[in-house]
This record gives sequence, C-alpha cells and structure tokens, in this order.
Amino acid sequence: MNNFLRINMSKQKISNKACPKKYKFIGGRLLTSTLIAEEVPPEVPPFSEKNKLIIAPGSLGGTSAPSAGRLSIGSKSPLTKGIKESNAGGVLANKLSRLGYKAVIIEGKAEENRWYILKIAEEKVRLISTDKIENIIGVDNYQSCKILQKKFGKENGFMLIGPGGERKLPIATCAVTDRDGFPSRQAARGGLGAVMGSKGLKAVVVDDSNTSKINYKNKAEFQAMSKEWAQELVKNKKSLTKYGTAILVNAMNEVGGLATKNFSQGTFSGAKNLSGERLAEIQEKRNGKATHSCMPGCVIRCSNIFHDEGGEFLTASLEFETITLLGSNLGIDNLDLIAEIDRFCDGFGIDTMDFGGALAVAMENDYLSFGDEKALRDTLEEVQKATLMGKLLTQGVKTTGKVLGVDRVPEVKGQGISAYDPRALKGTGVTYATSPMGSDHTAGNCLPGREGFTEEGKRNIEPQKAEGKIVLSREMQIMSAMCDALGICLFIGTSYITAKKTAKLMTALYDKNFSPQDMLNFGRKTIATELEFNKKAGIGKFQNRLPNFFRKEKLPNSGLTWNIEPRRLQDIFVEL
Amino acid sequence: MNNFLRINMSKQKISNKACPKKYKFIGGRLLTSTLIAEEVPPEVPPFSEKNKLIIAPGSLGGTSAPSAGRLSIGSKSPLTKGIKESNAGGVLANKLSRLGYKAVIIEGKAEENRWYILKIAEEKVRLISTDKIENIIGVDNYQSCKILQKKFGKENGFMLIGPGGERKLPIATCAVTDRDGFPSRQAARGGLGAVMGSKGLKAVVVDDSNTSKINYKNKAEFQAMSKEWAQELVKNKKSLTKYGTAILVNAMNEVGGLATKNFSQGTFSGAKNLSGERLAEIQEKRNGKATHSCMPGCVIRCSNIFHDEGGEFLTASLEFETITLLGSNLGIDNLDLIAEIDRFCDGFGIDTMDFGGALAVAMENDYLSFGDEKALRDTLEEVQKATLMGKLLTQGVKTTGKVLGVDRVPEVKGQGISAYDPRALKGTGVTYATSPMGSDHTAGNCLPGREGFTEEGKRNIEPQKAEGKIVLSREMQIMSAMCDALGICLFIGTSYITAKKTAKLMTALYDKNFSPQDMLNFGRKTIATELEFNKKAGIGKFQNRLPNFFRKEKLPNSGLTWNIEPRRLQDIFVEL
Repeated sequence: MNNFLRINMSKQKISNKACPKKYKFIGGRLLTSTLIAEEVPPEVPPFSEKNKLIIAPGSLGGTSAPSAGRLSIGSKSPLTKGIKESNAGGVLANKLSRLGYKAVIIEGKAEENRWYILKIAEEKVRLISTDKIENIIGVDNYQSCKILQKKFGKENGFMLIGPGGERKLPIATCAVTDRDGFPSRQAARGGLGAVMGSKGLKAVVVDDSNTSKINYKNKAEFQAMSKEWAQELVKNKKSLTKYGTAILVNAMNEVGGLATKNFSQGTFSGAKNLSGERLAEIQEKRNGKATHSCMPGCVIRCSNIFHDEGGEFLTASLEFETITLLGSNLGIDNLDLIAEIDRFCDGFGIDTMDFGGALAVAMENDYLSFGDEKALRDTLEEVQKATLMGKLLTQGVKTTGKVLGVDRVPEVKGQGISAYDPRALKGTGVTYATSPMGSDHTAGNCLPGREGFTEEGKRNIEPQKAEGKIVLSREMQIMSAMCDALGICLFIGTSYITAKKTAKLMTALYDKNFSPQDMLNFGRKTIATELEFNKKAGIGKFQNRLPNFFRKEKLPNSGLTWNIEPRRLQDIFVEL
Repeated sequence: MNNFLRINMSKQKISNKACPKKYKFIGGRLLTSTLIAEEVPPEVPPFSEKNKLIIAPGSLGGTSAPSAGRLSIGSKSPLTKGIKESNAGGVLANKLSRLGYKAVIIEGKAEENRWYILKIAEEKVRLISTDKIENIIGVDNYQSCKILQKKFGKENGFMLIGPGGERKLPIATCAVTDRDGFPSRQAARGGLGAVMGSKGLKAVVVDDSNTSKINYKNKAEFQAMSKEWAQELVKNKKSLTKYGTAILVNAMNEVGGLATKNFSQGTFSGAKNLSGERLAEIQEKRNGKATHSCMPGCVIRCSNIFHDEGGEFLTASLEFETITLLGSNLGIDNLDLIAEIDRFCDGFGIDTMDFGGALAVAMENDYLSFGDEKALRDTLEEVQKATLMGKLLTQGVKTTGKVLGVDRVPEVKGQGISAYDPRALKGTGVTYATSPMGSDHTAGNCLPGREGFTEEGKRNIEPQKAEGKIVLSREMQIMSAMCDALGICLFIGTSYITAKKTAKLMTALYDKNFSPQDMLNFGRKTIATELEFNKKAGIGKFQNRLPNFFRKEKLPNSGLTWNIEPRRLQDIFVEL
C-alpha cells in the first residue's frame, strides 16, 4: 500500500513509484488535501492543466476493518474554488489498496474532445482511448458503465463521469460502482467530475484479481479487533440498519429542521410520505431493499435499493439529503418522483443536492412552482436537452441564484446547503458556515444526540440552541476529517471511541504505534492543510457565514433564527 | 484637498476628517487601491458590508492641469473578485477636489431595499432617503438624473447607478454627469455600480458652489506650465481631436486587430461604416459633435455627441471600444444601432464592453446570430424585462460563457476582453493577461506607435510580434497607473514626458519637490498594492493568461496567433 500512480494526461505518461516516506501512514482526505496543497498552486483555475485530481483510499483501506472502503477524491473545486474532498463508498477503494496504491494522481489535460479510460491492473496500467468504444460518450452513466463492464469484465471496479462531467458542470459527480455493479455511489459534491472531465478522463477501471498487497503487522490481532467492532456496530446501529439514512426524515421534521420549500419552513406536511419507514414499507412490497451495504465490509447497511412500481430496479441509494432536497425542499412528497430524479442525476452525473437546491431557488423566483410535479419532470428534459434553464440549473445553487437575482440563496462558499435547516440544528449550521469544504453536512454533522469529542462523550444537547455549538462543530469536523483520512464511514461513529479503536487497528496494521490522539491529529492536520490552501485561494474566515436570510427570517413553527455570533464563526479554528 | 469623507451606510453616520499625513500627496487609483488594501479584508464577498466603495479625484484633481479631472472609483469587484479601480471623466472629480475631499469612503450597507442619496456641499453633507422622490428607482439613468437635477440644481455634479446597479449586476456601472449634465460618463468596468447598489446608495450629488480649497504652492508657475502643456497637446493630438477614439476603427482594422465576431476574425468587412471618419460625417449632418470634451479643462476632446436621424441627442459618447464590441464583434456595421444600444446601456447602467462581449458569446452558441439587428434589439427588451436570457447576458462575458457552455470565452480574471484582438496587438494582449484589473485596455494599451517608457521614448514597433512586449506592457501599465493616480487622462500621454511635466506641476502645487521617478513610482506602488491584495484574494500569477483559443486559432487574414510564453506572463511583475 505504498505506491503513487501518476498519470500525466497531457503527455500520456504513467509513473508508478513508491511514495515518499512522509506519506506512509496517511490516506484518504488527509492525503488528497496534502497533495493538492503541495502540488497545486492555490490560485490556478480549476480546469487548468495545473490542477490535479487525486484518488485515494484511506489509511485502513483494503483491510478487514469495518466500513473502511471509502474512496476519497480531491482537487481544487470548480464550485467552491477552494480545496475539496468528496468521498464515496463502492468497491474501488479496496481494490486500489489491494493493488498497493496509496493514491492515483491525475495531472495535466488531454487534448480537447479526446477521452480516455485509465485501466489499472496488477500487470499493467494504461490509458485507452474511447475512440473505438461506441456509445460511451454523452450517455447516461448506467448505460456507459454497462458497456465498460462488457469490455473489461464486471468483476472490476469502475469510477466514471456522465454527461455532467463531460460538460464540465460545476456540480458534476464521479460515480463509483457498488457491489452489484451499479454506478450508484457518487462522490457528489464540489464538481470533481468536472475536473475529471477537464482532464479528458472518462473512466477509471480497476482490476485487482489475484492480488493483495495488504501487509498486516499483526493480522490475527487486526482481524479479531475488526470482528469484535463489527459485532458492536450491528448491535448499536439498529435504526440505521433498519431504515438507512431516510430514518432522519421524521426525526428532522420533529426537530423542525427539515429543509422545506427553499428553507422557508422547517417542517413539511408531507414528511411522512418521504420517511424511512414509508420507504421500507414500499420497497418491501416491490422487492427492493430498505437496507443494503454500499461497500464490502459494511455491517451498517444504511444504503437502499429502490424499485419502481413494476418491481424493477430504479435507483440506489435514496439518501436522506436527496429525499429532502428533491422532496420537502421542493414541496414534493412523492418518493417515486424523487427516485426518478435521483436516477436521472446519477445517470447524468450531477449532485442531487446542488441540483435540488438550484431547483428550489428557481421555485423561489416563479420560474417553477413548489410542488409542481409535472414542471419538475420537465426540467429533467431541459437538462438533457441543454435548454437555457437546463444549463442554468446544472450550474448549482449559487449561479442559479445569482443569474435569477434571487435573495434567498442557501449556499456557503459557492456550495448549496444540504438538507438540514441550520436554524434548528445549530451545530450543523456552524459546520456549514465554517468547513473548508463549503456547506457540507458530512464535514461535521451535529445530529441530535450525536456523541461528541471527549473520552466521556459530550452530547449535542438542545440542538436548536446556540450554546456550545462552536465547540461541538469543531469537534465533529475534526472527527469527521479523521474518519475521512482513515477511509472509514462516518456512521462508524465520529467519536473518541472510534479514535481509540482505529489507533489500535493502525498499530496492528503498520510498523508504528498509534495513539487515539494521533488519529484525532489526522483530522486536525487535514483541516489545517485545507484552511491554509483556501486562504491562499482567497477563501478566508470572513466567508465563514450563512446567508443573511437565516438570521432575519424566523422558522414559522418554532420561531428559531440563526443567532450565532459572526465573530465566533470566523475564529472557530484559531484553536484546532 | 486633504479630507476623507466617510459615510457609514449601516449606521447612517458621516465623518469628515483630515486625512492621515501619509496620504497627503496621493490620489486617484493609488489612493483607492491603497485604502481598499488597508481597510477591506481581501477575502470578503464583494457585497459584504465589509467591502467599501472609494471615490477619489487624482492628485492633480481640481487644478488647471490639462485633462486632470478623472474620477477614480475603487472597490473589491463582483466581476473579477479582485481589487478594482474604474475611472471616468465628467465634472465630479474637480468638484470634490474644490470642496477639499481627497476621498469619499462608502462603508457598511443600508437596510435592504432602502435607497439613499449622498448630498455633499460646503455647508453640509447628508444622506437623503429616496422615499419621497418619485420615479427615481428602477428607471433609466437619464430619467432619474433629470429628477435629481430638478431637485438639487443642474449646476451640481452627479454620480448615480441605474437599474443595473440596483439589481447588483456584476457589470453595473457608476454614471457620472458630463458638462452638459448628461449621465454619459461611465466608470464602466468591474461592476462597481453593483457595489454602490449593495450599499443602498443611489446617487452622489456634489455642490461646490462658491468654493475652492485648492491651495497652490506656486499658482502662477502652475498655471503657466498648464497652459503651455495644453497648447502642446492641441498641436500633437490632431487625429484624436478631429475624430475621437473612433479613429481607431480603421487603424485597428488595418493592423488586423479589430475584434470581430467574437474574436474569430481580426478584420471586419463593415469597418468603414463604423469608422471615426464616418461618425464625423454623419454627425456633421445631424448637428451632433464628432469631438467634445468630457470634462472641464480638456483640450483633447476625444469624446463625441451622437444625434439620431431626427437630429436629436441620442447618446454620448460612442467610444472605439463600444463601437467594436457592440459592432464588429457582433457582425454589426450600423452605427445608429450601436448608438441605440449604447444609450440603453448607459441608461440601464451596464458596461457596454462586458455586455457586448456576452452578446458575442451568445452568438457563438446559436442563441443569437452574428449580424442579426432585429434579434439584437430584442435582447434589450429581454434585459429590460429581465427574462432568463436578459438576466444571463447582464452577468457579463464569463458567466454567460460558463452557463451556455461556450468554449471561446474572451475574458481574463472574470472580465471581458475589450476591443483589441491580442493576437494582432501583442503588447495590449500582455496587459489583458497580466493587469491586476483583469483584461482592461486602459490598464496599459500598447497601440501601434505608442510611445514607451524611457526618456528617449521607446516605440511599439511591430505590434504583431511577441518580442519586447512584456517590457512594453509593463512600462505602459506603470505609466497608465501613474496617470490614474494623478487623475489625468491617458490621452495626455502615457510617457516619460508626462512624468516630467506632472512632476513639475506636483512640485508647484504641493509643499514638496517631486521627480519624474516619483511620478513613475506612483504607478509602481499602485500595481504592487493591487497585486498584493489580489494574491490574498486568490488571484495570482497563474491567472495571468489569455483564453486558450487565442493560442490555438489563427486570425484568418494574418495567420497570427497568441504566442507569448506563459512563464513570461506569470513573471512580468517580478521586476516592477
């Protein structure tokens, strides 16, 4: 697990070398952000040949640690114009680790309108032109993925971009295949698919057959600990295991923090129709799956497989954030329609969150109407046909708001706010405002009752109150970054327990002893590196703020407003 | 000439204080950029209450020096996201100087949807709500200016924003009244009108009746030198004096550098119909004026007054850049139509260059067609009615190109390229690529035959060749910034002669001796300050580049391409 694979798209050159010693133990987001900070000048335009796209499994990638197969993708983002990491489940991370790669570094740019596939296998790494592969450019990810699977073998792992990435849309995703071979796992945020597209890279195919370069220092101990932890997780994560992330629909509606009608309400009358419980009920009838593991080695199984009314596979997975931003936030309570749009977005290769957010902004401005299902379906055709409105919406929340001249534009640092209303979930609001990633719940989600940072485990008491939320968000951001560096899923627990357990696993894996503080320092180092890059890219503490309307407008049911002192948001990382 | 007038729009507070000593001799762009760099955190969003709008006459403002009445307006730009100065002629600068103001500093932000007029007079400075003034918001600048003149007196100077600034469009201008009382002089570039709009400031009215605070150290000597220089200028600037800037249409067409059909050609078959000679011929018949001085004390008179076919005033002034970007670059050879669009833009308060550039980009993409006069007229209605396309076009070249997905987008650092094709005028191309202002011909235009930097006067020999253009552009940028600091028009001569003459004038005006090098150092200091701000705002040397198509596509007639080494553009200011 020690090699850097460098692919220079300008020169069509491939280099495969042992990584410098200093990178030996780091991975995931810590590695992608470190390499971007070291190798990409902060002021380069995101589609410059000087920008890079870094693909990295976490430090525990490829091992038997539970839920450790997250794939980090890092770059300078065309959406936030800052440093970005977006991670996804699926099968690719483990395959890269097994082949011995710490990172795949995509550099330079192919000639315009030339597309390549990067095929990585034990015996050879090569760039293959798509010229002789029919129907692979300009088509839905599900369709092109099938063609790739036919050509290279379904047992491989795939990461690809759809028309969104080809068109360099700033909300374009990188899709990663799941265990069933569907390109359903999206590294969705920040337009990294557009960077991949700018480089002329259509897909990465990873073949790890008959290989494993994972060398445990103490394999038996590692496996015993992994097994024990997995068993604990099965016991403790029952609600997620039963209903997936959609369990949050009812929960957030009760807290009054369910993004509704472009964040004008915190509760939605149709919430029940969108709930995890309803989703499970429907899918049981249709032979879908209310729970499903998105990557090998996951016992939490928060994902789902959504079948249509005819009982056929429609999409996977319908997450809480997608359900909210394509549902309640648009005044829509029809899960089937949401699933249809989700499938469209996954196929087209765009972020459901920033696209959904843009739709809500357009509804704010009378171009569309909240709850109008027909009009919403029509917008998909507009995107497909690249009408003016279709093009605008696929620029994401910020540009849509700017061009339409809307005042209520829920974005931070260029990225659309995800599904949680920050007035009702203040800790998550602090994360939105302050994360170097732009507004991103995965950067430090402070859900009600979520455990905190200290060994004793602080709790997010009274999530609607401002008190204590700066500290809570900072802690959650550090622990989320720690998980992202290790390649483990956030649902394992962004907690001190995770720091303790992973320190032991790291010690059993590598030729070094790790303490829980070492694990937390992975998180701290990640954030510090990103803040420094962003500062040089012109994104500093004065951009640590939420849009004004959250401060001015009360949530109608609860009367809550956004009331965290601006100065405290600016100074959150003075101590890190 | 020593006071800073600070207007806090949030608190509705006015402070009028002597400026700190260190600012005593500096003015214009040097002062606006210095104050922005010192007082505005580089990473704040342009519409933040922390951004400021600085209005400053030059160091020679209000004096009898020839053409020294330029008004600098500075801020962090919503278009380039960097530091910006845009200057205009008109009557305001001299009036501010005569009232003793070095700078008017607009801080904070008024409450949303509240609009104010800043009235500056000897006896009192006050903010007046527009609530009781009918028909002033949402209407054409010409209309609202008339209302202001009726209320405050036509003898005052006015600076105002139109619907463009009210809507915070990133290409909104600040309009300044000329000697005839028309709001025809535009500080056009970089969307400073939108910053003014974001602060809730609709207009500035300056009444300097019975006042002059200009204290010459040696008035007789100053006036004698001014007179002598003015006489020389009359002798040497004959072509400008006869035809204004439109003289450049034929000249640039001959060099093959006339922006044509979205910079796809360097020559235009209809150029003759757009020429200065033709303009003079038409206006003679219609009782317009082919030459006209835009500010008091100008003997060059490069401006014009354009009458319509009925002999009525239509617009002032039709400059070369407007004629090109609304004419040849759109495939239009109809001066009357161009004048009509110019009048629309001046009234609406948007930059003819970035709007024209955006129209060309839309024509590139089949939304409009080159040369289609009817469609072009219709777009004005689209802007007026704020249709989706109207809204998009008024975002300027860059956003229009991004949303429409056009490859050939002529912009640098977010700002549309003006009328000169950089392949045929390489020195100006270097300025486009490297100026901290974004692509702006006024930052260092290297016209054929234009004098250079040294005492001997280098000349721009072979403007189409790459050789020597880095040095030439740097010199022209320094000398242009020098002129901008002094408040003198660039047509006085961006040359060492100007440095010599203005040093003597400054010495006769102020209590200090100035050398020509001191004058040039004003220019150097301006650029250095701006580069430092931009670096912190994330705009660095890697953004010193022209769009790729200039490198790849040959100009069809001449075969010229853009062939200046990227590294040399990045390093142009290593020596400054």
